[in-house]
Amino acid sequence: MRARIRWGLLGGGPGSLIGSVHRIAASMAGDYQLMGGVFSSGSATTQRAAQQWDLNEDRAYPSLDELIRAELARATHERMQVITIATPNHLHFDMARRLIECGFHLVCEKPITTTAEQARELARLLQSRRQVFAVAHTYTGYPMVRQMREMIAQNAIGPVQKIDVQYYQGWINPIIHDPSQWPKVWRLDPKLAGPSCCIGDIGVHAFNLVEYTTGLTVDRVLSDLDGLHPDNVLDVDATVLLRMSNGVRGVLRASQIATGEENRLHIAVYGRSGGLKWLQEEPNRLEWLREDQPIAVLKPGHAYDAPAAQAASKLPPGHPEGFIDAMGNLYRGVARAVRGEAVAAGDYPGIEDGVRGMCFLEAVLQSSREANRWVLL
Amino acid sequence: MRARIRWGLLGGGPGSLIGSVHRIAASMAGDYQLMGGVFSSGSATTQRAAQQWDLNEDRAYPSLDELIRAELARATHERMQVITIATPNHLHFDMARRLIECGFHLVCEKPITTTAEQARELARLLQSRRQVFAVAHTYTGYPMVRQMREMIAQNAIGPVQKIDVQYYQGWINPIIHDPSQWPKVWRLDPKLAGPSCCIGDIGVHAFNLVEYTTGLTVDRVLSDLDGLHPDNVLDVDATVLLRMSNGVRGVLRASQIATGEENRLHIAVYGRSGGLKWLQEEPNRLEWLREDQPIAVLKPGHAYDAPAAQAASKLPPGHPEGFIDAMGNLYRGVARAVRGEAVAAGDYPGIEDGVRGMCFLEAVLQSSREANRWVLL
Amino acid sequence: MRARIRWGLLGGGPGSLIGSVHRIAASMAGDYQLMGGVFSSGSATTQRAAQQWDLNEDRAYPSLDELIRAELARATHERMQVITIATPNHLHFDMARRLIECGFHLVCEKPITTTAEQARELARLLQSRRQVFAVAHTYTGYPMVRQMREMIAQNAIGPVQKIDVQYYQGWINPIIHDPSQWPKVWRLDPKLAGPSCCIGDIGVHAFNLVEYTTGLTVDRVLSDLDGLHPDNVLDVDATVLLRMSNGVRGVLRASQIATGEENRLHIAVYGRSGGLKWLQEEPNRLEWLREDQPIAVLKPGHAYDAPAAQAASKLPPGHPEGFIDAMGNLYRGVARAVRGEAVAAGDYPGIEDGVRGMCFLEAVLQSSREANRWVLL
Amino acid sequence: MRARIRWGLLGGGPGSLIGSVHRIAASMAGDYQLMGGVFSSGSATTQRAAQQWDLNEDRAYPSLDELIRAELARATHERMQVITIATPNHLHFDMARRLIECGFHLVCEKPITTTAEQARELARLLQSRRQVFAVAHTYTGYPMVRQMREMIAQNAIGPVQKIDVQYYQGWINPIIHDPSQWPKVWRLDPKLAGPSCCIGDIGVHAFNLVEYTTGLTVDRVLSDLDGLHPDNVLDVDATVLLRMSNGVRGVLRASQIATGEENRLHIAVYGRSGGLKWLQEEPNRLEWLREDQPIAVLKPGHAYDAPAAQAASKLPPGHPEGFIDAMGNLYRGVARAVRGEAVAAGDYPGIEDGVRGMCFLEAVLQSSREANRWVLL
Repeated sequence: MRARIRWGLLGGGPGSLIGSVHRIAASMAGDYQLMGGVFSSGSATTQRAAQQWDLNEDRAYPSLDELIRAELARATHERMQVITIATPNHLHFDMARRLIECGFHLVCEKPITTTAEQARELARLLQSRRQVFAVAHTYTGYPMVRQMREMIAQNAIGPVQKIDVQYYQGWINPIIHDPSQWPKVWRLDPKLAGPSCCIGDIGVHAFNLVEYTTGLTVDRVLSDLDGLHPDNVLDVDATVLLRMSNGVRGVLRASQIATGEENRLHIAVYGRSGGLKWLQEEPNRLEWLREDQPIAVLKPGHAYDAPAAQAASKLPPGHPEGFIDAMGNLYRGVARAVRGEAVAAGDYPGIEDGVRGMCFLEAVLQSSREANRWVLL
Repeated sequence: MRARIRWGLLGGGPGSLIGSVHRIAASMAGDYQLMGGVFSSGSATTQRAAQQWDLNEDRAYPSLDELIRAELARATHERMQVITIATPNHLHFDMARRLIECGFHLVCEKPITTTAEQARELARLLQSRRQVFAVAHTYTGYPMVRQMREMIAQNAIGPVQKIDVQYYQGWINPIIHDPSQWPKVWRLDPKLAGPSCCIGDIGVHAFNLVEYTTGLTVDRVLSDLDGLHPDNVLDVDATVLLRMSNGVRGVLRASQIATGEENRLHIAVYGRSGGLKWLQEEPNRLEWLREDQPIAVLKPGHAYDAPAAQAASKLPPGHPEGFIDAMGNLYRGVARAVRGEAVAAGDYPGIEDGVRGMCFLEAVLQSSREANRWVLL
Repeated sequence: MRARIRWGLLGGGPGSLIGSVHRIAASMAGDYQLMGGVFSSGSATTQRAAQQWDLNEDRAYPSLDELIRAELARATHERMQVITIATPNHLHFDMARRLIECGFHLVCEKPITTTAEQARELARLLQSRRQVFAVAHTYTGYPMVRQMREMIAQNAIGPVQKIDVQYYQGWINPIIHDPSQWPKVWRLDPKLAGPSCCIGDIGVHAFNLVEYTTGLTVDRVLSDLDGLHPDNVLDVDATVLLRMSNGVRGVLRASQIATGEENRLHIAVYGRSGGLKWLQEEPNRLEWLREDQPIAVLKPGHAYDAPAAQAASKLPPGHPEGFIDAMGNLYRGVARAVRGEAVAAGDYPGIEDGVRGMCFLEAVLQSSREANRWVLL
Repeated sequence: MRARIRWGLLGGGPGSLIGSVHRIAASMAGDYQLMGGVFSSGSATTQRAAQQWDLNEDRAYPSLDELIRAELARATHERMQVITIATPNHLHFDMARRLIECGFHLVCEKPITTTAEQARELARLLQSRRQVFAVAHTYTGYPMVRQMREMIAQNAIGPVQKIDVQYYQGWINPIIHDPSQWPKVWRLDPKLAGPSCCIGDIGVHAFNLVEYTTGLTVDRVLSDLDGLHPDNVLDVDATVLLRMSNGVRGVLRASQIATGEENRLHIAVYGRSGGLKWLQEEPNRLEWLREDQPIAVLKPGHAYDAPAAQAASKLPPGHPEGFIDAMGNLYRGVARAVRGEAVAAGDYPGIEDGVRGMCFLEAVLQSSREANRWVLL
């Protein structure tokens, strides 16, 4: 018999979309039992959530301090094992640091910190520990993204020679043209969102997908950022030239003012003998281009899929799985790691992905500040 | 505070795909707490499941008899409220009958019985009761299917004048050509599957979708069934001419030997001023054809969607939701009904849908037996 | 040096869409030179067309009688060789009969006659002659339709076990609901259109595509026809069950009241080891489904295409070819036949296709009249 | 009566793909009559072509000198009016210059010259003349590209705020990895192809499409070019940051090493209230994104299309038109201009498009040479 992992949640209280996504994702495979947490900055809200979710109200804590104190006071076999950080971004770093020091495994929403240096500090902290640290790059949980990674690793398209990734949304468009709305949108407030809006929110996902699928690392970037409105100080649109460490060229395009787009994350990787293309909005298809052959469209749940892709699909072919299912796969990977079972590199994004994302973000901003010059990551 | 609904499960033990789908779907919105059930015909397996799922082992019952006896012995506020029947088909009717008589709300996998008469008997039983009876026609839980139903009801395409539904799969193809495999496939055994394979398994879903989306009822059918192999007595392919009660014509095509198809359920409804088309394999799109206007592609999560469709979507536009999310919406409807909250007609398929499905199945089989003549439902 | 074929045209004068399609198609490969014809029932219009098209006005004839007389009076090496019949349907048979008797090669718009008996009479006339008779089933000219035919012939999907063809249009919808418009629409007038509207206009194309791609013949049909409006005597919607001569089942769906559809001709053929699907509105793709393999999407212009498909494409991959290009391929086949070059069975549809189409049409109508019973072709 | 335009052709002899495309395109609407030309550098080949095409052999000239001499000797009403230049690129400028000076109207394949200065010289020559000069930017002839242009001009998406264009091909991939093949590929030889391969061949098309559809002009560029192989001096892959004259940002991506891609030209333009997207490989669709509304998919042949788009379509909706049909529309525009009929700005690309393309090419190359800095056009 396999006991469920004792799980805590920071943020993500009633009404929080991301909290509900984490709760469903964590419960999907029956791996986790939510024990408690700090679901809101208001302790009454936290208590209400505990009642609604049938939790022991003792473990609906008023603060992280209290959570840490009380959980550490419990016996090891009762203590929370994994804690998910789903609070506003500017709180991530401090929470993560303290929880790592106290021995908890973590799942952290991205961006994990507000600076690359903070991210590196978390990485240093984790270095000699066996704790799990996972970053919520949900897109890496899709079966066909894992299939893409495996196929590239196994040379299905030959050495990579060109990378093109796009992450286009339009949701900020009506806001950016109406400054009276800005105060309501924390992503446009540098104090809350940090130094970037578009790159920090979605550009890092696209960046992560590039490194996740290709196994290559971005060496330097040249960026062209746009705030669209003269009074807006944060980027809402970005084009970034990429140079990989082996010299391969790429381009990353991210926008929140691609009016009418919903969540159009698309990646195309071309190699010496073929290409692979995946679109988040139709996630259960992977197009494989090969020279002088028909286009192959791979789908989840088939014997032809790599084991990592097969393991990421719960349903028979033709039964669509979606965004929450993808995040569920991250949680399954974390569960395996926490239990000491075999974990592969792509099972969940780790602290190194978090660090890379922050380095990318800072390099992109620097390139933009410095007249679009190349900046090393 | 809203307590979770006490939920029981029949069948669906470890390793059961459909059981896992029901468990995830029921937990999605935090409405249900699994208390126990009879997860397998073997009581050791049931016990093991209870341990794995952290259930009270007292409520992991060896049999339905035992479950009924013990649950009725509990106080009302502790007793299971909703029970899901996910056992093999031939057990559905008897289980459902007894549980209805004992006052439980039910979610029942389809087909709910093996004959129309049995289905009508369940309907009669339920007539003067306030118990909920839901049939797992999962496809009605997709946001864009609900949108389609609402739009037709609100005259978006004018009076319906033509209906075309397809449900094509290919999974039985390799089996049907290899009789040595038949004994392993219960769907091909009339004793276990009942009188139909293709119509009973998928044809009834397509039929349900027709009546669900159009609000019309099928009056009579003319069918052409194929078993493909001379020794196979059950249908694996079917074309059914439909005549709706208002005279409108339709056609239903279902196949399990459409080699290479996965789960290709597609419905097109044409009215006097437009058409609507939906494909299960790309469920987050609804095509709306109008005369002399561009094709409109509707997607979930938008203000332009009908309230019923908006309520069926948990995520922002562009974040795909899938099959389990659709079933989750059925469970949410059942939860509302159990709690006495307002429930709309389309929130979950009910006993009348179950009865209609069995009538359809029998009429189709009769038409095929009687030289493809028209048979009234 | 290869001289151009001397070509004549009946009907298709200025303002005629189909005439312009034939003229462009015939000229595409440089095979034909338009010499003259009877472009309109009014001889002034015919003269005007001749001027506009820089033709010798002597060969812009006032009538078919005159054309035949004058052309036969010319020396063989000056006489028109191929004549295209693009007049209203009820004139086809008589024109074709006379022109065959005078030794001309013919391209005839479909339906080639108004009864099957007339079609058989043309076939008998042609039996001992070496004249070419081509029917304008344009869709057989698409490269990917030819690829589909070749692949089925070469066993790419194994023995065919299920056929599904659809031809949905919506153009007649606004007309059928407004009887005041009927007099302007010759297709709704039995005197001009013959005994059928939908089957005669588009159903026969779908039927032809079935036999063209599969190489099988339809043995009998059971049909359900709809005129939609009580006063309309001709079919505008049809579902036809097909039984092939080897017992394989199929279904043909044709409609002119599928509101909002443009020209949605789709064919799916499933065999023991795979399936093939083609859609006219996206003609440069052919989907090949195979068990346990990714979907393959074939496109024109590739070395992997069959020679017949390669020969039907003029441009490099990725440069779309369309409807007129498809008809151009029929004319190229006719040119090869007229010149005595090697011609393959699929190069252009012949008299036997015309006869089959008329037999199909009559059987469909008979089944509908006789209470939807099976009728042999 | 409207006489056909007397047309001459340079290059494009038997076996030339582009020649055949021009001949079909010019003949589509019956506007042109091919009188003669210089079809090949070998006069025997030219003569053979003349015979094959039933031309007067007197006008199958051995050289451009001879053509000019003989045509000018003819009476005006017999002289060629329009001449198409479809020879290798390095010959374009000199031919165009001489023909302009002699008063001919021209259709010129792109690139019209090998330097921007030459292009400007042609523009100066044309300045005070009434001669037509059209550049073969075929993609501007697609109905849905014209629709896109009209909709942007009429504010359908509001002021443009972001432009993204892609032109990805893979054909040069197998060649670039095999230097032994380079000598056979003139596009990789700077002496024949000029200073660029990818930008010169396809990048300029993408650039033209940006300016054509948006009505904006590119002000400066920053480019990242790749030759892929260390010994290859010409670009085969390019990413170009665009800054429009009104400050709007854009990105142009072109590649000939996007392995497996055929002819994937895609443009997306986002404005303050919506977006428009078009893909060359599925040219008969235009996606219109609007905030809080369903996606609209426009197709050719509808009353809702702008007049310029309607005029560019010959067939009823649902009958695909392709690449040659698009070029046919350019020729129709040229015919109208030559006849002195009303011509709109978008009817065919003119000399100014040719000049802009060459300026773009030179700026892109300069940016790449000068460490990826911004360069003004």
